[in-house]
Amino acid sequence: MAEKVQIREVGPRDGFQNEPETIPTARKVELIDALARTGLKRLEVTSFVRADVIPQLADAAEVLAGIDVPADVAVSVLVPNERGLENALALREAERERRGESVDRGGRDAFDEINVFLSASETHNRKNVNRSIEDSLAGLEVVLARARAAGLRCEAVISTSFGCPYEGHVPPARVLEIATRLHAAGAQEIGFGDTTGMANPRQVGELFTGWKEGLGEVELTAHFHNTRGQGLANVLAALEVGVDSFESSFGELGGCPVPSGATGNIATEDLVSMLDGMGISTGVDLPALLACAGRVREILGRPLGSHTLVAGPVDWH
Amino acid sequence: MAEKVQIREVGPRDGFQNEPETIPTARKVELIDALARTGLKRLEVTSFVRADVIPQLADAAEVLAGIDVPADVAVSVLVPNERGLENALALREAERERRGESVDRGGRDAFDEINVFLSASETHNRKNVNRSIEDSLAGLEVVLARARAAGLRCEAVISTSFGCPYEGHVPPARVLEIATRLHAAGAQEIGFGDTTGMANPRQVGELFTGWKEGLGEVELTAHFHNTRGQGLANVLAALEVGVDSFESSFGELGGCPVPSGATGNIATEDLVSMLDGMGISTGVDLPALLACAGRVREILGRPLGSHTLVAGPVDWH
Repeated sequence: MAEKVQIREVGPRDGFQNEPETIPTARKVELIDALARTGLKRLEVTSFVRADVIPQLADAAEVLAGIDVPADVAVSVLVPNERGLENALALREAERERRGESVDRGGRDAFDEINVFLSASETHNRKNVNRSIEDSLAGLEVVLARARAAGLRCEAVISTSFGCPYEGHVPPARVLEIATRLHAAGAQEIGFGDTTGMANPRQVGELFTGWKEGLGEVELTAHFHNTRGQGLANVLAALEVGVDSFESSFGELGGCPVPSGATGNIATEDLVSMLDGMGISTGVDLPALLACAGRVREILGRPLGSHTLVAGPVDWH
Repeated sequence: MAEKVQIREVGPRDGFQNEPETIPTARKVELIDALARTGLKRLEVTSFVRADVIPQLADAAEVLAGIDVPADVAVSVLVPNERGLENALALREAERERRGESVDRGGRDAFDEINVFLSASETHNRKNVNRSIEDSLAGLEVVLARARAAGLRCEAVISTSFGCPYEGHVPPARVLEIATRLHAAGAQEIGFGDTTGMANPRQVGELFTGWKEGLGEVELTAHFHNTRGQGLANVLAALEVGVDSFESSFGELGGCPVPSGATGNIATEDLVSMLDGMGISTGVDLPALLACAGRVREILGRPLGSHTLVAGPVDWH
């Protein structure tokens, strides 16, 4: 089992887009800046989706212009398609002009990484992005090639990798085939998403073992949802077969647009609490992270799914 | 890993006693009768504690007289001390007289098993039962001997086995010492309680391995709380070192009287959902169990911590 684990925080994108009320830009900036100072080294902060589709993230440009993230923390944005990448690159260019000398002198670009996604299930992919898997793949192959050429790190997440709420079982070989194409197209990292919380630990161990064998040296990431309370058990199963990269969301925010009611990602603070207890290093300061989760709870004005936010860290005296 | 797991449902005792409003006796009887028809084979239904200490369970006699539990489902009651056992045995005697011939003809007694408990941490034990561990042990040795002589099956649960909210680390050797005395006194089964959700999977694996070695052929049971969202991950870790007996509470009801705010047991339906997914047999019908959890949510009129109750069972089509 890894002694050190990497956590990518997806709450500012995956979480904020699932809130019925749009969070004010200034509050997003405040939360991202605070998350960037907890020891988390990778943050997914917004998305270049159409504003009429996801109005909650229509302020992507303002968020990227407003945040102040330390140089050693990677900023990632979600890019759904070719058009999204064009907009993202145009924004990066505009920001370079605005930031001027600071970028030349080693200052940072508006973002460092992109994240693309599709589903391994035909029905879920059509309901989520209104394309066939083949059309999504063809588009993402172009996106990944262009993004890599533009010097961006690329992660591709495969939703419904462990099961589909519409189709049930998703053949692991199909997931591997999609992952292989995304990797060949330029994705340096492949994320496997349990989008609606159907995974169980035995399956997680078996599937990751197969995917690791099939993909070789690619960086593999597990993206679990806590829909049926099994999120951290699935993390444990993934750790046991050598996975050392996880995505999670502070406050247990997030979900998936389809089907409606699909609940949150695993809570970053519950993940960190468990890994801390196990002596596995995350680099994250749990009290600082809990302060961020407490602040977003305050902003949203409702109880969140996170357990450690309610219970507090374990006190070993 | 076990192919078959035993689940003891503790909600009607551990859960109901933690509700601020006492649940009406008729509703308790309805819920216990329904739980007894889900495939669960062991139910902890009430407690012989003082009514002024836990008024929520003051109707123990009425509950035991009112329930109608199939013959193959064991009924367990919590007995805190010698006085509690006296009251329990007196009630069993009175029920034998009332039930008359039916008991002689193989009908059932009011209950089949007792459950006793103490803490492995001195401070928690004093705050919970106002006795030293040594005084608790001396009393429980008498209780266990008398209960066994009266033909009752006996489980002893050791609270704070994985850590104490007041003292922090609890020496595993001290837990083993207490377990050994309880077993010698007549307990056929020892439960190890993570009363305030401090356990982590690595610790669970290590401690159960040591306790199994130290105790030999005694039946060991894991009693986890989901305080920090790690309950099912701890179940997985226990399964991996051969534990095949778990306690849980429908709806994720329950907690611990001290400290206040200590949250619920793992939800039985989340546990069954995970084990179903892993192909581990529980004998429990998940939809029937979810109906019980839904009914108690309706009776309590508030959202519960259970995840599968909200999400529903995984649909593999």
